[in-house]
Amino acid sequence: MIVIMKPTAQPEQIESLKKELEGLGLQIHFSQGMNTTLMGLVGDTTRIDIGKIASMDIVEEVKRIQEPYKKANRKFHPADTVIKVGEATIGGGGFAVIAGPCSVETPEQICAVAQAVKASGASLLRGGAFKPRTSPYSFQGLRGEGIQLLLEAKKQTGLPIVTEIMSYEDIDLFEDVDVIQIGARNMQNFELLKRVGRLNKPILLKRGLSSTIEEFLMSAEYIMAEGNEQVILCERGIRTFETKTRNTLDLSAVPLLKKLSHLPVIIDPSHATGIPWMVEPLTLAAIAAGADGVMIEVHNDPPKALCDGAQSLRPEQFDALMTKVKKTTAFFQTL
Amino acid sequence: MIVIMKPTAQPEQIESLKKELEGLGLQIHFSQGMNTTLMGLVGDTTRIDIGKIASMDIVEEVKRIQEPYKKANRKFHPADTVIKVGEATIGGGGFAVIAGPCSVETPEQICAVAQAVKASGASLLRGGAFKPRTSPYSFQGLRGEGIQLLLEAKKQTGLPIVTEIMSYEDIDLFEDVDVIQIGARNMQNFELLKRVGRLNKPILLKRGLSSTIEEFLMSAEYIMAEGNEQVILCERGIRTFETKTRNTLDLSAVPLLKKLSHLPVIIDPSHATGIPWMVEPLTLAAIAAGADGVMIEVHNDPPKALCDGAQSLRPEQFDALMTKVKKTTAFFQTL
Amino acid sequence: MIVIMKPTAQPEQIESLKKELEGLGLQIHFSQGMNTTLMGLVGDTTRIDIGKIASMDIVEEVKRIQEPYKKANRKFHPADTVIKVGEATIGGGGFAVIAGPCSVETPEQICAVAQAVKASGASLLRGGAFKPRTSPYSFQGLRGEGIQLLLEAKKQTGLPIVTEIMSYEDIDLFEDVDVIQIGARNMQNFELLKRVGRLNKPILLKRGLSSTIEEFLMSAEYIMAEGNEQVILCERGIRTFETKTRNTLDLSAVPLLKKLSHLPVIIDPSHATGIPWMVEPLTLAAIAAGADGVMIEVHNDPPKALCDGAQSLRPEQFDALMTKVKKTTAFFQTL
Amino acid sequence: MIVIMKPTAQPEQIESLKKELEGLGLQIHFSQGMNTTLMGLVGDTTRIDIGKIASMDIVEEVKRIQEPYKKANRKFHPADTVIKVGEATIGGGGFAVIAGPCSVETPEQICAVAQAVKASGASLLRGGAFKPRTSPYSFQGLRGEGIQLLLEAKKQTGLPIVTEIMSYEDIDLFEDVDVIQIGARNMQNFELLKRVGRLNKPILLKRGLSSTIEEFLMSAEYIMAEGNEQVILCERGIRTFETKTRNTLDLSAVPLLKKLSHLPVIIDPSHATGIPWMVEPLTLAAIAAGADGVMIEVHNDPPKALCDGAQSLRPEQFDALMTKVKKTTAFFQTL
Repeated sequence: MIVIMKPTAQPEQIESLKKELEGLGLQIHFSQGMNTTLMGLVGDTTRIDIGKIASMDIVEEVKRIQEPYKKANRKFHPADTVIKVGEATIGGGGFAVIAGPCSVETPEQICAVAQAVKASGASLLRGGAFKPRTSPYSFQGLRGEGIQLLLEAKKQTGLPIVTEIMSYEDIDLFEDVDVIQIGARNMQNFELLKRVGRLNKPILLKRGLSSTIEEFLMSAEYIMAEGNEQVILCERGIRTFETKTRNTLDLSAVPLLKKLSHLPVIIDPSHATGIPWMVEPLTLAAIAAGADGVMIEVHNDPPKALCDGAQSLRPEQFDALMTKVKKTTAFFQTL
Repeated sequence: MIVIMKPTAQPEQIESLKKELEGLGLQIHFSQGMNTTLMGLVGDTTRIDIGKIASMDIVEEVKRIQEPYKKANRKFHPADTVIKVGEATIGGGGFAVIAGPCSVETPEQICAVAQAVKASGASLLRGGAFKPRTSPYSFQGLRGEGIQLLLEAKKQTGLPIVTEIMSYEDIDLFEDVDVIQIGARNMQNFELLKRVGRLNKPILLKRGLSSTIEEFLMSAEYIMAEGNEQVILCERGIRTFETKTRNTLDLSAVPLLKKLSHLPVIIDPSHATGIPWMVEPLTLAAIAAGADGVMIEVHNDPPKALCDGAQSLRPEQFDALMTKVKKTTAFFQTL
Repeated sequence: MIVIMKPTAQPEQIESLKKELEGLGLQIHFSQGMNTTLMGLVGDTTRIDIGKIASMDIVEEVKRIQEPYKKANRKFHPADTVIKVGEATIGGGGFAVIAGPCSVETPEQICAVAQAVKASGASLLRGGAFKPRTSPYSFQGLRGEGIQLLLEAKKQTGLPIVTEIMSYEDIDLFEDVDVIQIGARNMQNFELLKRVGRLNKPILLKRGLSSTIEEFLMSAEYIMAEGNEQVILCERGIRTFETKTRNTLDLSAVPLLKKLSHLPVIIDPSHATGIPWMVEPLTLAAIAAGADGVMIEVHNDPPKALCDGAQSLRPEQFDALMTKVKKTTAFFQTL
Repeated sequence: MIVIMKPTAQPEQIESLKKELEGLGLQIHFSQGMNTTLMGLVGDTTRIDIGKIASMDIVEEVKRIQEPYKKANRKFHPADTVIKVGEATIGGGGFAVIAGPCSVETPEQICAVAQAVKASGASLLRGGAFKPRTSPYSFQGLRGEGIQLLLEAKKQTGLPIVTEIMSYEDIDLFEDVDVIQIGARNMQNFELLKRVGRLNKPILLKRGLSSTIEEFLMSAEYIMAEGNEQVILCERGIRTFETKTRNTLDLSAVPLLKKLSHLPVIIDPSHATGIPWMVEPLTLAAIAAGADGVMIEVHNDPPKALCDGAQSLRPEQFDALMTKVKKTTAFFQTL
């Protein structure tokens, strides 16, 4: 961290700040310019509050050099994190496909979709039981009953299940869920992050609509700092001025996150675009860019879906895509 | 709501969709173009799921005409909502000033600030007990103890208190809090919105960093739909590409929200800009634009603040600002 | 400027970079941390190419401390720039109102509007002759003929005129124009900026839709570096995710630009919002925030306007607004 | 186009609007709701000014159904446009690689890079002679001399050349240039678009930093409307809140543009990210997403580059990438 002092800062003020920072266990190195004094801070600066230092009268600006995350940082953990869920593996070189409907609706629907996506080669089943909806008047999900239906589909197919939690008060319902999802709107619900950080269960963390890469990794750090290091990062589109797609998929986030962190990175092209025919080109692009997996919405009857049917693939479309996914994954593994 | 059919839609398909929509209690009116059929839906369309209709093979596009919010809508509630908290009033023509430190730190700090802002004319005291911080390694607030200190400051000054809740599990601690704040990062934490919607206590709802005006009003609607109609809307800066200010204050949101809704609208220039000298021009601008109040960070010793000190005013700066606020408010009431 | 070296940088490589930078007339100061070497560069760094240094193998990062603009910088020119155009003055404490139609259409239209806005107290007349339109099929302006009509309106009313240039090839037509406008879409048309920088005529420079404050000032610097220091900065809304207003007016840009630069700063609420009833609250807010003026669209018959009629005020609406503008300006001059 | 009337619109006012629209050659169809009248406009609505109709007192809102572009629209031109330049082909199923330095600097530099990229398999040579730089104090390019050097490199290698024009006044210098580039900052420099629209030479049009897909296609339409239908669309990153990459590559724009338009679509990963190691994953992702080509910065000595060296690949890095590009292109052609 570098602290740039104002030209008006007096030597005794600078000395006093130096003492305070040394009290935090940091080493201080000075650089004296013609009319600027720079202070270089060496040591563990993750606990330093930039805003506090920046607010001092004698300080012009504070610049952080090191990343503020540690547990999620590849520098301190060079090997890929590999997450195993039942027979599925996320991270470490493969390409995991998580598929299923936006919402769990009926036993017939979820079991039919589960069997279809399993037959096509998906390795995990997704399905929303608790649904974050912009309008209080929209379908809010089957909630506890939805999780029961997912567990039934798991029993029938053997597929591990991924489903979203919206409030920690519901945690008991998630006991048999394999992977708990934290949605984009809760990416900075810090109390929830801390709570799931104490579980021994993989967490699929979605990037917030307007969260930077650094904030995204800091939210993963919240979970990991509590002890749970099984975090899967999911890029699902960011909010921009473009209106033709629901959000803008930031595919460059995939290689960037994999460079900065050892955690597995997947994308969600269904939510990113809201357009079913765009799922295929973006899934193949994600493989090419080095993603560890993808999460795709599949519904046996999209027009009848109670939520986001417009963006779902039909099972036969998903099956055709999976054929390409398998070939493409194999190709890039040998490239 | 208007449903635009694809040119390939067959008459029997259109007829079938018409029947389904009529089953939801809507009246359907057709407009037959040369190669397009339009369906106009008349009735209460707030419960219609646009995505579901849009996903049908025969549908080209669906366009909503009416706003999807009702309780927050000025069309159905023309008079301003006025919220009374102790002796303070928010909405209905005055200009309420909420002031206090970012975080509650010590009994001395919160009481000193409370007395200072009261003396200058603030009508409510703010202070963070539960603090949403990007980093798990930053100060997270005094939590329950912080609320106790706020209540002590309230006892000493008579100022009603505003403080943020981050998880409904902590609700018991908020029993004597006057106004509960929902922070920007929780604006779409729908479970929390529903819960505070069942309280009989004003809720100060902050706009999310990348939330549209419509989403903001829908989150207010979540609270109101549960029965709690005492919602204060707070614009606190949106996320844009600009980096010189922390966020970009969307001041045009003030007249727009007041046109669309009857709820009181305040701004938070401290968080919007992160720059203390910008609080004054933007507060005066907010009065000119018709805001119902402002929320300002004040700290007795900004460089020692445990959080966001850099953006806080000192009590004497706040006092100078309040002199201008009073004159400006009086001026605009007679303009 | 601070250059942060990689831990792997060898002493002879660092020495070689030091020599190169000293060759550019800079003084170099070192700060040796435990595992990082920092180089502080003192001197005129405006001509240093950050990207070039950042691309060196031995460099981790380069951070600029000083602003990259000089002529537009208030640090080197503390007094406000005041621009006089005929009897109008922009900057230096007053509040100039520029008003007129989006497009010049007919002699009757422009003269009627000119007389009306003059009678209400506008000090300059605006009107588009060359019109930047998203579609090639939309009305492109009367071009040379439009300028003739503006000059006729000027003759009738004495109001100096402001109109936009889109290509330097048309410069001869602008000989008698008082203030030349560079539109938002041309804010980084650097060849055009250089050309108008050689004129002896005020330039009204609009901020680009997604330009940062710093880029905006750098574009002013392009004009000023060629010798023309009469630049008026105009904030006209930036592009964000919000869709209820055409753009998002960044009102905080007003105090920020006035702090960073000595140039006058005005706003254009008509283009920023696209909504006529929002012009009044935002104009009053701009006065409160310290703006030097405003540019407002006025049309004698908005529904018949050939361009952007939807956002124009009618003369009687403009007149009512001007009454408030005068009172508000007077109020803030004594606050 | 659908015109939604206000509930207060009187029959004679509606009738009068109907007549006016019929006068423009449109057919009007009415839909009478309970309290809303809708007017459907059938015919060529590209020349209708939405803003003008929206500004009428009796109109609530106007919604466009058809795309406002025609010549660029795949609906009216289903077959891919294929552009041939010398022996290179862009569009129609192949994958064209345009490579070269950001700026042309010396004869040795441009010829060395040209020979290297040709040897690796590039089919066109890029190089900036006129350089759009944020700062007037940065290197502005060799201008006319730079074009001469490009032509010399073309003579030596046979590679057709692509270079940017910044002002039409310089057009004579571009006589022997094969493809003229319009940069992102000039995407809505409409006068320049019209001028290059009268040339018989391919135009490489870069997407503006904050331009929507629709605006991008409308700028292509400006060129095509003048007669030049050889337009290559280039996605080069949009401006968002993210700061880790220079811009955010909108890869979803590739399949979207190819669906909406018949024009070839390429990406520029060098400018989009500003990070050389990200060029490879994003180039491979672009092939997977269906792009027609890529434009990559290559410099023989990046740290010595006068512009954007930080984002350039070295020839050996480019060569390694081209090996993967050829295999990947071949793979996807058979997928």
